[in-house]
Amino acid sequence: MEEVHHVVAPPHKSTFQKLKARLKETFFPDDPLRQFKGQPLKTKFVLGAQYFFPILQWGPNYTFQLFKSDLIAGLTIASLAIPQGISYAKLANLPPIVGLYSSFVPPLVYAVLGSSRDLAVGPVSIASLVLGSMLRQEVSPTTDPLLFLQLAFTSTFFAGLFQASLGILRLGFIIDFLSKAILIGFMAGAAIIVSLQQLKSLLGITHFTKQMGLVPVMTSVFHNVHESIRKPKLFWVSAGAPLVSVIISTILVFAIKGQNHGISVIGKLQEGINPPSWNMLRFHGSHLGLVIKTGIITGILSLTEGIAVGRTFAALRNYKVDGNKEMMAIGFMNVVGSFTSCYVTTGAFSRSAVNNNAGAKSAVSNVVMSVTVMVTLLFLMPLFQYTPNVVLGAIIVTAVIGLIDIPAACLIWRIDKFDFIVMLTAFFGVIFISVQHGLALAVGLSTFKILLQITRPKTVMLGKIPGTDIYRNLHQYKEAVRVPGFLILSIEAPINFANITYLNERTLRWIEDEEDNKKEYSSLQFVILEMSAVSAIDTSGISLFRDLKAALEKKGIELVLVNPLAEVIEKLKRVDEADEFIPAQNLFLTVGEAVASLSTAMKNQSTIPEGAHTIMPHY
Amino acid sequence: MEEVHHVVAPPHKSTFQKLKARLKETFFPDDPLRQFKGQPLKTKFVLGAQYFFPILQWGPNYTFQLFKSDLIAGLTIASLAIPQGISYAKLANLPPIVGLYSSFVPPLVYAVLGSSRDLAVGPVSIASLVLGSMLRQEVSPTTDPLLFLQLAFTSTFFAGLFQASLGILRLGFIIDFLSKAILIGFMAGAAIIVSLQQLKSLLGITHFTKQMGLVPVMTSVFHNVHESIRKPKLFWVSAGAPLVSVIISTILVFAIKGQNHGISVIGKLQEGINPPSWNMLRFHGSHLGLVIKTGIITGILSLTEGIAVGRTFAALRNYKVDGNKEMMAIGFMNVVGSFTSCYVTTGAFSRSAVNNNAGAKSAVSNVVMSVTVMVTLLFLMPLFQYTPNVVLGAIIVTAVIGLIDIPAACLIWRIDKFDFIVMLTAFFGVIFISVQHGLALAVGLSTFKILLQITRPKTVMLGKIPGTDIYRNLHQYKEAVRVPGFLILSIEAPINFANITYLNERTLRWIEDEEDNKKEYSSLQFVILEMSAVSAIDTSGISLFRDLKAALEKKGIELVLVNPLAEVIEKLKRVDEADEFIPAQNLFLTVGEAVASLSTAMKNQSTIPEGAHTIMPHY
Repeated sequence: MEEVHHVVAPPHKSTFQKLKARLKETFFPDDPLRQFKGQPLKTKFVLGAQYFFPILQWGPNYTFQLFKSDLIAGLTIASLAIPQGISYAKLANLPPIVGLYSSFVPPLVYAVLGSSRDLAVGPVSIASLVLGSMLRQEVSPTTDPLLFLQLAFTSTFFAGLFQASLGILRLGFIIDFLSKAILIGFMAGAAIIVSLQQLKSLLGITHFTKQMGLVPVMTSVFHNVHESIRKPKLFWVSAGAPLVSVIISTILVFAIKGQNHGISVIGKLQEGINPPSWNMLRFHGSHLGLVIKTGIITGILSLTEGIAVGRTFAALRNYKVDGNKEMMAIGFMNVVGSFTSCYVTTGAFSRSAVNNNAGAKSAVSNVVMSVTVMVTLLFLMPLFQYTPNVVLGAIIVTAVIGLIDIPAACLIWRIDKFDFIVMLTAFFGVIFISVQHGLALAVGLSTFKILLQITRPKTVMLGKIPGTDIYRNLHQYKEAVRVPGFLILSIEAPINFANITYLNERTLRWIEDEEDNKKEYSSLQFVILEMSAVSAIDTSGISLFRDLKAALEKKGIELVLVNPLAEVIEKLKRVDEADEFIPAQNLFLTVGEAVASLSTAMKNQSTIPEGAHTIMPHY
Repeated sequence: MEEVHHVVAPPHKSTFQKLKARLKETFFPDDPLRQFKGQPLKTKFVLGAQYFFPILQWGPNYTFQLFKSDLIAGLTIASLAIPQGISYAKLANLPPIVGLYSSFVPPLVYAVLGSSRDLAVGPVSIASLVLGSMLRQEVSPTTDPLLFLQLAFTSTFFAGLFQASLGILRLGFIIDFLSKAILIGFMAGAAIIVSLQQLKSLLGITHFTKQMGLVPVMTSVFHNVHESIRKPKLFWVSAGAPLVSVIISTILVFAIKGQNHGISVIGKLQEGINPPSWNMLRFHGSHLGLVIKTGIITGILSLTEGIAVGRTFAALRNYKVDGNKEMMAIGFMNVVGSFTSCYVTTGAFSRSAVNNNAGAKSAVSNVVMSVTVMVTLLFLMPLFQYTPNVVLGAIIVTAVIGLIDIPAACLIWRIDKFDFIVMLTAFFGVIFISVQHGLALAVGLSTFKILLQITRPKTVMLGKIPGTDIYRNLHQYKEAVRVPGFLILSIEAPINFANITYLNERTLRWIEDEEDNKKEYSSLQFVILEMSAVSAIDTSGISLFRDLKAALEKKGIELVLVNPLAEVIEKLKRVDEADEFIPAQNLFLTVGEAVASLSTAMKNQSTIPEGAHTIMPHY
């Protein structure tokens, strides 16, 4: 009989070695210590310092040329950051000035720790919205503003703590579970909620629901709609760019003394930079549960945004950001923020794009922005006194409307219907239930899909592509043909407790279907399981083969395995050293070789597939 | 250039067709309606009736010969069922007689509906234990026995309802999540808890903790241990077979008037068969939550045992049991039971084995047992008056000790360390926390493992097995060799939102490793991704290829895909009809063909792999 290549188990490894390898792949897939290998101690130290403070990496060779571009970029994003900062703070039901505080300290921290060159750090709409709405469930920002502020800072602290620990414990993959589909749906939903809420200031509605849900918001809007006739003219200001509209409207209000004609304005803001706030953190009392929950959710959301932005621009400009390192940077930034009167911040989509377009070369643009904000805080605050709240509302709306990504939604519909459903779940969940529950539902659903793929793995029948010894899915490759006497199935998932029952039933049904139309094919003699896609197997999985073999023997059919991968063959060998239930001669490297050598072995020569001789390997 | 076989997408199917196919595979993998196809209406009706009442299938050709074996088997299991019924009822803190009721009605129902020939139906230790201990958390069986009984029947009702709906909704795969490892750990843990609890009657401890946890039980035991000296002689009776020990001990007690010397006995039991109990079901009040939870957990556990037993013996004796149908049968059996003073019942491991050994041929053995129990209920109850409780305790202990399966545990350790950990989790969880939490922990852990496999899929480097065009894992097949200029990676999991970040990073790291040791290999020109194991892909998955291609282009490396399966190629084509990011000439059917045709295409002829000519397909 012609040469056949045998399936071998991988070289033996101790449980400890395996565990070590597995842990490394799980937690250190990027192998961060690679660069340290074989370096002198001094270099190691320098590299270590550079790892934690990327500024030491790019700082030394930073030039005046680079600075010029960073200066322009920095001023540009500052002109966005100031009005947005004020607006988003209001979105989070916080005093406007906290928005500016949050645009001052965090960017400085990130400039030292962050590894992205394009991230523009500051408050973002989503996190602000979620923070505000979640805390509002227990504490009213109007009746008890101080407590609300304390909870906001405490939540920010927990958000940072959570983000940093994700990075330190290298559990970054947790944020991967907020899939693109979920984010698109979620952001669209959030945008709608925010816009509706802003109708408040846009329509000048004074009493407004504290609920997040769509229904109450709508009713509240329509209930107050009669007031909305009062000053619709200001509504259209929202068209203009943030800063311009702020300036114009402020001058306008100042000129016409609008504040006396019922136009609500920001009002006096105290000057000076961030006061310390560590004394405001509350780690006790009845609201602890809420702030921790809020911290975790805003933490995940802002982290997702920050990491996504970082990765996007890094890929665009061909440099690398280390996910786990970014998490530590953003996390530490928020912890420091919570000590210095800042609330949750991260890298903002919109501003980072502007930053990049304006030609930012490094994190210095963040420093420039931060300094600009500082100057504003120190000297320009009086100017904002007359800024009408309606403009801030307009700024928020224009910002969040941009989050609704219809084309992406269409693409998802085109590619994967289930992802589309997940997207809708996030969308409607956020609108009709709540941010946290909407997200939880969507994540649960998409996780359930993965489990379902495991619980109901595909088993496809393979056929021979004529004139080759390649065997492929009969359904996909129309030219492929069955080989008489053989049933060749490919199992397309790891085999484990969750699917052995199904695989057992399904395989037996394939065989019954065969026997039902025996007339067409000569009676079945071999069932070949192509295992190339079975990446893993567990205890229950092993028992599947034993059961299958037993069931097949009763029908006088032989069970043959093709190309079991390392883990599978290893465990098979371990459970029956005696090769009692899968003898070595029933293990093959390719379906071609299996069919070739088994056909020759077959008693009934007439069942050799036509052209079988061409199948014999040519070695 | 030599002929190359092209990757094709499967024939187009509408979303609805796909959905239909998917739902069928998910919920009807066994295709239950197959037998109905193309049958005349009358046959269809008969088949339908037989589907719901298997007795119509085997009833007609039931012979006296068969009956004789069933009679013997039936009497044998009755001799087990009566003492065990009484004992397990006490284990569930229910009046002993309920155990006999539960061995009378359910077997009759199962005989009509069930499709297994070997299942011996009745109360089982695990379910009894869980039912008793869970209900005891809120209601004391001693101070409020009636309420306790009501809750037990109501839980039984919900258990049956849940089991039946699993069958009707075809969600049977849910019980698969109680993997073998979990059950082994759980049963061992439960056995230990039960045995400790039974020390109560064995040592004649009168006041006993109502807690389940090991610690309280132990303390309570040792606290009462001084009493245990009183009558240790009875302890050894537990050695004998249940019925014998019951008879002997009863006679003994009766003879020595033991009940007057502090030996606690069952005492008077009223005669007569099951009274109706539908009026005792409580669907309102404060305990509803508990009974539903208890119903679901006992339901799942008893279902798992029943189905497992059924499948085991069906495989042994080469007939089929339909999982979903069995669930309906067991579920309906319990619903009827809850109306007729029975508590949760199912097919018992131990008794079914006895039943099978005693030569049972059909469900008639259950009928025989049931009739025997009926006779007992009607006429023999007075005999049990003097049966000492200690014997019942002994019976329980001997029964549950058999559930501890050390060899199976060792096998699991040999095959899969993680499964072993899961097993230990179930074991210690049940002992130290509680049944429901122990199980939840173990299930959660094993589900987490599956998700981890998806989140961190294996990527292995392939090499050419000399003298063939077969490419396999370099680590597994030592003889395999790298092909200069190529990096051939096999991705061994579906690609989705949960792993694209990892796959992206990991692949780029493979490439960097390559570039680091350029000296050994000629510089990298092609990265080939072998996709045979990528059974599914989602929206995010598609974006992985776009990102990878972009990243590779920057390094002047081409991305090549080999053997993308139906779903993958389909979605790829759908997203870029223009083949803009994976052009057709970068798709191949086998790695061999890819390497062959790309090497010839390579500028630098020197990088053709040695022996490349043998790679050219010989068609």
